[in-house]
Amino acid sequence: MSVQRPFQQLASRATAQSCVQRSQHSFQGLRIPQQQSRCLASVAPPVTQNATGSKGPTAMVFMNMGGPATTDEVGGFLSRLFADADLIPLGPLQNYLGPLISRRRTPKIKKQYAGIGGGSPIRKWSEYQAAEMCKILDKTNPETAPHKPYVAFRYANPLTEETYNKLLEDGFGKGRGGRAVAFTQYPQYSCSTTGSSLNELWKWRQRLESPTRNPDLSAAEAEGSIQWSVIDRWPTHPGLVEAFAENITKTLETYPEDVRDNVVLLFSAHSLPMSVVNRGDPYPSEVAATVWAVQQRLGFRNPYRLVWQSQVGPSAWLGAQTSDTVTNFVKKGQKDLVLIPIAFTSDHIETLFEIDQEVIHEADQLGAEGRVRRAESLNGSPTFIKALADLAGAHLHGGEVCSRQMGLRCPGCTSERCLEQKRFFTGLGQQKNKALTL
Amino acid sequence: MSVQRPFQQLASRATAQSCVQRSQHSFQGLRIPQQQSRCLASVAPPVTQNATGSKGPTAMVFMNMGGPATTDEVGGFLSRLFADADLIPLGPLQNYLGPLISRRRTPKIKKQYAGIGGGSPIRKWSEYQAAEMCKILDKTNPETAPHKPYVAFRYANPLTEETYNKLLEDGFGKGRGGRAVAFTQYPQYSCSTTGSSLNELWKWRQRLESPTRNPDLSAAEAEGSIQWSVIDRWPTHPGLVEAFAENITKTLETYPEDVRDNVVLLFSAHSLPMSVVNRGDPYPSEVAATVWAVQQRLGFRNPYRLVWQSQVGPSAWLGAQTSDTVTNFVKKGQKDLVLIPIAFTSDHIETLFEIDQEVIHEADQLGAEGRVRRAESLNGSPTFIKALADLAGAHLHGGEVCSRQMGLRCPGCTSERCLEQKRFFTGLGQQKNKALTL
Repeated sequence: MSVQRPFQQLASRATAQSCVQRSQHSFQGLRIPQQQSRCLASVAPPVTQNATGSKGPTAMVFMNMGGPATTDEVGGFLSRLFADADLIPLGPLQNYLGPLISRRRTPKIKKQYAGIGGGSPIRKWSEYQAAEMCKILDKTNPETAPHKPYVAFRYANPLTEETYNKLLEDGFGKGRGGRAVAFTQYPQYSCSTTGSSLNELWKWRQRLESPTRNPDLSAAEAEGSIQWSVIDRWPTHPGLVEAFAENITKTLETYPEDVRDNVVLLFSAHSLPMSVVNRGDPYPSEVAATVWAVQQRLGFRNPYRLVWQSQVGPSAWLGAQTSDTVTNFVKKGQKDLVLIPIAFTSDHIETLFEIDQEVIHEADQLGAEGRVRRAESLNGSPTFIKALADLAGAHLHGGEVCSRQMGLRCPGCTSERCLEQKRFFTGLGQQKNKALTL
Repeated sequence: MSVQRPFQQLASRATAQSCVQRSQHSFQGLRIPQQQSRCLASVAPPVTQNATGSKGPTAMVFMNMGGPATTDEVGGFLSRLFADADLIPLGPLQNYLGPLISRRRTPKIKKQYAGIGGGSPIRKWSEYQAAEMCKILDKTNPETAPHKPYVAFRYANPLTEETYNKLLEDGFGKGRGGRAVAFTQYPQYSCSTTGSSLNELWKWRQRLESPTRNPDLSAAEAEGSIQWSVIDRWPTHPGLVEAFAENITKTLETYPEDVRDNVVLLFSAHSLPMSVVNRGDPYPSEVAATVWAVQQRLGFRNPYRLVWQSQVGPSAWLGAQTSDTVTNFVKKGQKDLVLIPIAFTSDHIETLFEIDQEVIHEADQLGAEGRVRRAESLNGSPTFIKALADLAGAHLHGGEVCSRQMGLRCPGCTSERCLEQKRFFTGLGQQKNKALTL
């Protein structure tokens, strides 16, 4: 079940009567905070809104970590990445250690990006996926059309700040209301990834649209801010599972028929520091749910393991490590291995460099004879894009604010930013004692 | 998919013709080792076998860790537990540290068992569940009837050795063949639990029925040993999921209706040392699969977390810890919590003492006002027993030797015992270069 509120009633063309209904509205026990069910009748429609009865336009904002499109952007990308305590917790010395580590790593990482063609393809894929999804939504969900695709990256261009300003330029918010969906492109929720992106989105929302943070806003502008909802996790969406299964099957078909069922599938996800796991981050469990769903779809034909890649630094991270696993299996004589990037939907440095050029290269040096292979990332998969549209379409119809699970902070969480962000996105605003657990 | 071999063809009443078919048999690409498809025509039927065309009797052997039925058994139980490197890896000093720790802990643990009524109820529940399941199987699977219930515990009576000898006394093996199913009562596979039980079963099989280990066996006795198959994991069996969902729903109904959807569900499983997790143990992922399936069945109505309990000793274990989680949530004002034992099917010291008398007691001392509760363990749940029968019935019909996944050792595994055990139970015997990955 999701946390829901009636977006129809939050739309900008309201009547006096619907305002009354709105302020009294409650849904499945979750009362709608007054400031979110306020009357917006006086608010002008967004400039791009069509006048044919649609509640659109709707901004569909794809959130992801992003990656440097050119090697010149690597320095800035890494400095933002190592400054983010949600992603890489470095303790009280974060502001000192972060820049130090990022400066030291920049030359090495520049070479890696040079090695995969000079930059990350993640912007290209994200923009393509968002645009293609919106085309489908315009047909399947005419009531919220037109759907406008946006991309907001956490560490690379287009940054969240840039995208938020673009939304305002395009006619959303600033007194004109309008609806935007923050759609995480991490299928499994982690405070390090989706949580960090939402913290950043909330930060810019406060800076640009909150009257308490931005005194230049007029009363009307403050009233007609963007109405956000969040698609915060989708680890076992059947379309996602199908897209993974298709790409795995394609790769398995490259092996001779008599060994095909004995190929070991290694589902590989970015690891997490144990400090994050032990705080109660939901990511390891949700990644496991994806893996189980994909294996179920494939009929458990092949033996498999979920393994974890891309550990950085000396602290303890969740294992087994992908690279060690491949090395161990190849040394034991199990050379037929398919690596499946299971927690990222587009190619990025961890697939194109770490898996393809490091892990597989090392396996071949140990005698794997080209039998360690990688399933293609979802990238432009039509099945995947259809899944995105299916998921977003249901969200737009359903009036979800976010999942029920998003309201629950990790048991060991002490982040005030996380608390405020969750209060905002779950629609609980300043209601400190609301029923939903924070 | 499972590793299969045709049990029908391994039955003891064979004809000369079926022997030929047998030796040529292959199933879905997995060739049957010669020594397992050998002709058993000369073997006498088990003494308890009925003569009405049934392939039974079939021994249904429930494997679990067990628990001391009286406080006098605590010392022996703990000494076996801390001697088991599969469960508690203490390194090269295991033989020294194990007895030391178990002796030191015995008085404390005795008190805990005294506090839950003088002993563990796990034997009572296991014998009840196995017997009730067999009654159902006798009706649903007449071709393998009668089904005879057995319990084999790893650390308490009835120990695996005792149960194996009972099987031999009852007419299985020793030249009489007969089929036995090793049915793990841990729904999710860990090398620490199911793996350890299988290692123990394999050890006694070798000692009692292998001609290389037991030269007193006659040729006929060695030929007609027990034919084992294994139900090695069932984390998302729909009946299991339904049984959990029922007990959770019952507990949720004890909360007032207006807070019911805001109760946080804490699925609690026994933790693992990080050394085992990092070796690639499948348990954390399979527990997560159970949790996801139960939440899916419940419609994700409530926020939840998967948490881990019962850490012992100073080394790193997988978290977040159950007790810390409850403390943190209660301190933050989230008092409505339901604890769900998700990786064990009967009550035991970790539910009756650790959760009920420690965790919940501490929560109440922090002001939880009785709002932290526990869902009942599956114990005598008819839905659960039906699930066991459903699962076992499908296994008996399907000719499974074990799951496909069981053949794959953990990436970091270096245990020769584990290797040999898997070779035996997957039916690969001495075939060192078989297709299945070991």
